[in-house]
Amino acid sequence: MSRGSTADFRAPAHVPIAITTRGGGVESIHWGSVAVTDRGGRVLHAAGEPGAVVFTRSALKPLQALPFVRDGGPAHFGYDRAQVALLCASHSGEARHVEAVRDMLARAGNRAEDLQCGTHAPGHYEVSGEVPPPPPYSPLAHNCSGKHAGMLACCALHGWPKGDYLEAGHPLQRQIRTAVATFSGIAEGALQAGIDGCSAPNYALPLAALARAYARLAAAEAGDPDFGAAPATLRDAMVAFPEMVSGAGRPDAALMAAGRGDWVAKVGAEGVQAIGIASLGIGIAVKVADGAKRALLPVVVAVLDQLGLLDAARRDALTPYARPNVLNYRGIVTGTIEPVVELRVQ
Amino acid sequence: MSRGSTADFRAPAHVPIAITTRGGGVESIHWGSVAVTDRGGRVLHAAGEPGAVVFTRSALKPLQALPFVRDGGPAHFGYDRAQVALLCASHSGEARHVEAVRDMLARAGNRAEDLQCGTHAPGHYEVSGEVPPPPPYSPLAHNCSGKHAGMLACCALHGWPKGDYLEAGHPLQRQIRTAVATFSGIAEGALQAGIDGCSAPNYALPLAALARAYARLAAAEAGDPDFGAAPATLRDAMVAFPEMVSGAGRPDAALMAAGRGDWVAKVGAEGVQAIGIASLGIGIAVKVADGAKRALLPVVVAVLDQLGLLDAARRDALTPYARPNVLNYRGIVTGTIEPVVELRVQ
Repeated sequence: MSRGSTADFRAPAHVPIAITTRGGGVESIHWGSVAVTDRGGRVLHAAGEPGAVVFTRSALKPLQALPFVRDGGPAHFGYDRAQVALLCASHSGEARHVEAVRDMLARAGNRAEDLQCGTHAPGHYEVSGEVPPPPPYSPLAHNCSGKHAGMLACCALHGWPKGDYLEAGHPLQRQIRTAVATFSGIAEGALQAGIDGCSAPNYALPLAALARAYARLAAAEAGDPDFGAAPATLRDAMVAFPEMVSGAGRPDAALMAAGRGDWVAKVGAEGVQAIGIASLGIGIAVKVADGAKRALLPVVVAVLDQLGLLDAARRDALTPYARPNVLNYRGIVTGTIEPVVELRVQ
Repeated sequence: MSRGSTADFRAPAHVPIAITTRGGGVESIHWGSVAVTDRGGRVLHAAGEPGAVVFTRSALKPLQALPFVRDGGPAHFGYDRAQVALLCASHSGEARHVEAVRDMLARAGNRAEDLQCGTHAPGHYEVSGEVPPPPPYSPLAHNCSGKHAGMLACCALHGWPKGDYLEAGHPLQRQIRTAVATFSGIAEGALQAGIDGCSAPNYALPLAALARAYARLAAAEAGDPDFGAAPATLRDAMVAFPEMVSGAGRPDAALMAAGRGDWVAKVGAEGVQAIGIASLGIGIAVKVADGAKRALLPVVVAVLDQLGLLDAARRDALTPYARPNVLNYRGIVTGTIEPVVELRVQ
C-alpha cells in the first residue's frame, strides 16, 4: 500500500447531472457527461466532457455482434429476429430469454457448458423485487448469454476453436475489436481494453464516439459501407423486440417502446446509456461518472426532453423514470432522484 | 414533469476522492469531501468542502442516544454495555444482536411489534454473500433495531406515549434534536431535517460539525458540560463492543479493532463515515458525494494514512479495505477501487 492516494489522477470535466434529496435538502450528487452527435461524430449538444473516455460495457453489444451478422451467421443457423435481438441483450433471464438462448446454442452445435460468461441471479428477480432462490444459477440466465451464444456460434461458423473464445488474441475478439473501432470511428490502436463483467474483452470509447456509433446504428440502411446489412439487421431486431434486448419492466424496453421504432437504446453497467434516434440521425451517450444506475434514467429522460423528443405519450411512458421517489424500509417517501443536467449547444 | 432539470442547483466544492479501474484505465470516479477537526470544531485538514452539509444518517446514532443515556436509561433498565453499544449500532442482525435487542425491549416493557423501523433482510447475509431467505423479516433484525429499542425505552423511562415515537414533535425527538445541535455545535434552528431509512428523523450537518461531534465523543470524559457521563459511556461501549455496533466482518468493527481503543467509528448510509481519535482529540468525517459505499473505506483508510495514524499492525488490518479488487461473475479481477483523496492542511 502506497501513501494512500493515486497522485497523478486527473478527472474529466464531468459536471453534476443528478441529485438525490432527503426532506427538503440535497443528500447526494452524481457527476457525469453527455454527448449528442450526428453520424459523422460532430458533437451537437453536450454536458460535461463529451470527449471523456468511458468503458462502454453492455452498450457495446450491438457492435460486438457486427462481425457475426455481417458474415451471415443468423441466416446460416436459422436464428429468428428475437434471437438476433438477444445478440445485443442484457436480458433478465426470463424463460423466453433462456429458451431462445438454449436454441441459439443448439443450432450452432454448442452447449450451455460452453458459455464462459459466468453466472448470477436472473435479473427478473431484481425487477420484481423478489428474493432469488439460492445459487447455483444457469449461465443461460446470465444477462449476456445471448451475446456469448452468438460468439460461440461465430466460432462454429468459421471453424475457430471455442475453448478460448474470450481471449483478446482469438480471431473472434480480433474481428470484434476491429469492428468496434471501425463502426465508432476510432483508430483501433487507440482503443483502451478491459475485461467485462461477463469476461469478454470490453473497450473504452470517448462518449462522442459511442454516440456516433449509435447514430450510425439507428440510421443504418442496408448498404453500410463497412458492414453491409448487418447494422440495419441488428437495429431492426432490437427495435422490434425490445423486451428481448432487456426484459419486462426494464428501462431499455420502455425507451424503445416510447421511441415507437425511432429509438434504439442500450444500457451499460457503471452508468452508461446509448440511444440512437433514427429520424434525426443522431446518437446520445450518457455516463454517470460514479457508475450509479439510479441516476441514469432521470438524466436520460431529461436529455431526451431537452432535445425536444418527448411528446405527450412519450412523456407519460417515461414518467416513472424521470424523477423516481426514494422509499425507506417502511415504504415512506424520504426524497427523490432528480436530474440537474443542462445540455449546451456545441 | 418540468423541463428536465433542477436549474438552481449548486454543488458544494467536492473533489474526486476515489476511482475504479478496469484493465489499465479509469472506469468510474467518486467525488466527495473530508473534514478533520479538533474538539472545538477547528478544521485541521480537509479535502473538497469541509463545510458541505450532509445528511449524517447512521453516523448520528451516538448523538441520538445522548438524552436516554444522560437521563440514566441504561442503568434504570439494567442494560449491559453490549446493549449500550447497540443503541449506536447499524448491526448485522446476527443472533447476538437480535437476542440483545429483544432483551432491551422486554426490560422496558416493550415488544418487537412496537418497533417502527421497518424490516429488511438481515445484514449478515450481505457480509457472507449468501442469498437471504425470502421475507418476511423481523424488525428485530433491522440494522437500527437497537436505536429504536432505546428510543422506546426512553419513552418508557419518561412516561411518554410510544405510538408516535418517531414524530418530529414527540418529546423524544425534540430532545434528540436539541442534543444533536448542542453536541455538534450547530444552532438548533439551522438543522436540516429529513426522514431516515428507519423512519426516524435524521439531520444534516456540515461535515466539520460531524467531525467535531466525533472528536468530542472520542475524547469524552466523565464530566461533559452538557451531557455528563453519557458521551464517555457511549464511547466506551462502542469501543469495547465493536461487533455489537456493526457485526462480524464489517468495516466499523475492523476500524475500531485497528484503533485498539483509541478510535470510535460509525458508518452512515449514502457514503458517510465518522471517526473520533481519542489520543489526538480529533474527529474525521467523510462524505462520498454520490453515496457509493464501495468508495468509502478506501478513502477512509487513505485519510487515516495521510494523518499518520497507520502503524504496521493497523495497515495490515485495514489492507482488505484499502484498495479492494473489482471481481466479475467468474471471480476474475477486472480492476480495483483506489483512493485519490489528498488532504490539505488548513
